[in-house]
Amino acid sequence: MSEIYPYLKYVEKNLHFENVNLKDLALKEGTPLYVYSKNALLYWFNEFDSAFREINHITCFAVKSCSNVNILSILREAGAGADTVSAGEIFRSLTAGIDPKKIVFAGVGKREDEIEYAIEKDILLINVESESELKTVEKVAGKLQKNVSIAFRVNPEVDAGTHPYISTGLKTSKFGINYEEAIDLYKLAANSKWLNPKGIHFHIGSQITDISAFEEAAKKIANLVKELHSIGIEIEYFDAGGGLGINYNPSIPPIPSKALAEKLIPIVKEIGCTLILEPGRRISGNAGILLTKVIYVKERDEKLFYIVDAGMNDLSRPSLYKAYHHIVPVEEKNGIVKKADVVGPICETGDILAEGRELPELKEGDVIAVLSAGAYGFSMSSNYNSRPRAAEILVDSNTYRIIRQRETLGDLIARETLPPVK
Amino acid sequence: MSEIYPYLKYVEKNLHFENVNLKDLALKEGTPLYVYSKNALLYWFNEFDSAFREINHITCFAVKSCSNVNILSILREAGAGADTVSAGEIFRSLTAGIDPKKIVFAGVGKREDEIEYAIEKDILLINVESESELKTVEKVAGKLQKNVSIAFRVNPEVDAGTHPYISTGLKTSKFGINYEEAIDLYKLAANSKWLNPKGIHFHIGSQITDISAFEEAAKKIANLVKELHSIGIEIEYFDAGGGLGINYNPSIPPIPSKALAEKLIPIVKEIGCTLILEPGRRISGNAGILLTKVIYVKERDEKLFYIVDAGMNDLSRPSLYKAYHHIVPVEEKNGIVKKADVVGPICETGDILAEGRELPELKEGDVIAVLSAGAYGFSMSSNYNSRPRAAEILVDSNTYRIIRQRETLGDLIARETLPPVK
Repeated sequence: MSEIYPYLKYVEKNLHFENVNLKDLALKEGTPLYVYSKNALLYWFNEFDSAFREINHITCFAVKSCSNVNILSILREAGAGADTVSAGEIFRSLTAGIDPKKIVFAGVGKREDEIEYAIEKDILLINVESESELKTVEKVAGKLQKNVSIAFRVNPEVDAGTHPYISTGLKTSKFGINYEEAIDLYKLAANSKWLNPKGIHFHIGSQITDISAFEEAAKKIANLVKELHSIGIEIEYFDAGGGLGINYNPSIPPIPSKALAEKLIPIVKEIGCTLILEPGRRISGNAGILLTKVIYVKERDEKLFYIVDAGMNDLSRPSLYKAYHHIVPVEEKNGIVKKADVVGPICETGDILAEGRELPELKEGDVIAVLSAGAYGFSMSSNYNSRPRAAEILVDSNTYRIIRQRETLGDLIARETLPPVK
Repeated sequence: MSEIYPYLKYVEKNLHFENVNLKDLALKEGTPLYVYSKNALLYWFNEFDSAFREINHITCFAVKSCSNVNILSILREAGAGADTVSAGEIFRSLTAGIDPKKIVFAGVGKREDEIEYAIEKDILLINVESESELKTVEKVAGKLQKNVSIAFRVNPEVDAGTHPYISTGLKTSKFGINYEEAIDLYKLAANSKWLNPKGIHFHIGSQITDISAFEEAAKKIANLVKELHSIGIEIEYFDAGGGLGINYNPSIPPIPSKALAEKLIPIVKEIGCTLILEPGRRISGNAGILLTKVIYVKERDEKLFYIVDAGMNDLSRPSLYKAYHHIVPVEEKNGIVKKADVVGPICETGDILAEGRELPELKEGDVIAVLSAGAYGFSMSSNYNSRPRAAEILVDSNTYRIIRQRETLGDLIARETLPPVK
């Protein structure tokens, strides 16, 4: 269908993910339904990872983008580590069998119990984001009598020019430490009995398509590494974060990961570090789709609505970020194209999957595929409107497997203590 | 503290909800923590319900605003019915012991299995939102050989002038049927063997503070009822929906529910219907708070950040709607006031609880209360960033009870089938 969806294609007018017929799958397993392709995941992992093969590197998958342990396990087999931001994500990564020495832990609000969990599990690096956090890490390390390897997340102060909600490289954001204070904080860490400052981390944002922003940031951080080396602080790991963009519009070819690699490799070679990379959306985004069924077709005055059974609780990106997701029917149609709003069943006007979208005419019962839903799809889903969360499916060639069961009504209240009987 | 929080007060500099010390509660039960006051719930329920006492009415609590079965049970004891939008919400209402004959079921995307569930449970009214849905309801009723009472949700085409995301009374929205087509659809329903069109429903939006919008809408819908009566279609239930606003700023006094009642009562009296009302936020909003702890204080250049342990996964309203929530420390402070951003631990720039807010100076470990979090707080929460969801607590005088246990790491993956061992 498009080079950004290598495993998604129409076969005799029926959309297939790998060799699985998606209409049959939707009928059998119900909708809404998240479906991932194992080979698409591996395709995107390898497209990224192989671009860096000439240097020592660890591709740490950003677990927040797509957190199912089965997905993590597939990537682990392909060689991935994990970029985590909570105890929950470390727990998931370990459950998937990822080597603790390939796990990094970032995030501005690490609680003490999360830091303790990370230290006990002997992960590779804690990416520290403030002086206060440094003190907490040191305190916990002392309590556990364990040496801890850390990096600082340094703010390179490069504006990636992306959406304000997902751009994190600015000096006014909550993330990271200021560039100017980095040397002093590294010295502070180096003098600690328990801390081993052997990494440096930066992350400029998300959905970035301007490679020069990465290059500018990497050069600034590499200069800092040289300065640290000159004062005897040996930085082994250069963590360049994530954020390489994907396309949500299948007519635009993707930026090759090689373009990023070509910029980063010489910089990292010069300083002799192991490169850590944290792609999330880049790997999972176009390897997953959301299947949803048209429940009602509604025409009012000049407006046409397709009301579908997936809501903003299932996929919040369109409501939250006004994000574009391409939509195609699972049965190819060659008929009339109409402009329509594709809306969910949630009682909010903002529950919209697509607004004023030109689509082949749909009828009730038709199943559509919402593309590029593999990242920040299920992982952001909720039970809003008391809707059980969708199932997740993994296809592999002509077979498929349920990797997360659909929630039941009982699940909704499983942790609620029932009210006393009167 | 304010008349909008009648059960929230400082006692010897310690914030109490009813007679429970919130700092002690946070220490004992952990943060983030949702806390509701039983008596505040009853206060707001009665403030609303009593305003309508001179006429037959049912106050159907909007379950989507706050869905815990213990909350529903308290309101049921006070006389409430339930306004539901999914099978899950009907299930919750029945679990809380609410009489099916006090349950109404609305929503633009009711699935066939949900309609079947509603009919089997003999609820009061299905509020139908399109001709397609009418056909589905009729089909299911026929299959079950049961008569079904319905209302149509009629769009009064009144613009409530509120936020575009939560204003639903417009002709261009996905909700309801057009005013002009109502008579024809009622005739269609009246001719069905299985359908009994005995209600009419409208809902103009959310957070509405302009009572004249309600009055205008109610008058238009009442005219329709008179027309229906004149052609022999007996409308017994006049469902005026929800949407009466609350204050998120404690310095502004609330609009009394009586102001709404004074407008609606004469209209309903004239047509001789039972009035159904669907307040949600109005009852639960100011009866619940979110306690969260300052994990780190971070100063960079001119910006001050309080990084707290509640994120947009716990309370999404500030990120999703740029909503204002008042914040106070649980230990009263009389010292310096500083302007700060209160941000969560989630790895997104948009994870902000308050931006540029003047607050008493806070230190690490301080607990703050995010007010007016009883509606669309926990019910919209998610596991984003693999964060277990918060616990919910109900206080009653000087006691409290856990009404939903904090999720564990194990809960995160409980429905995921583990990957095959290789």
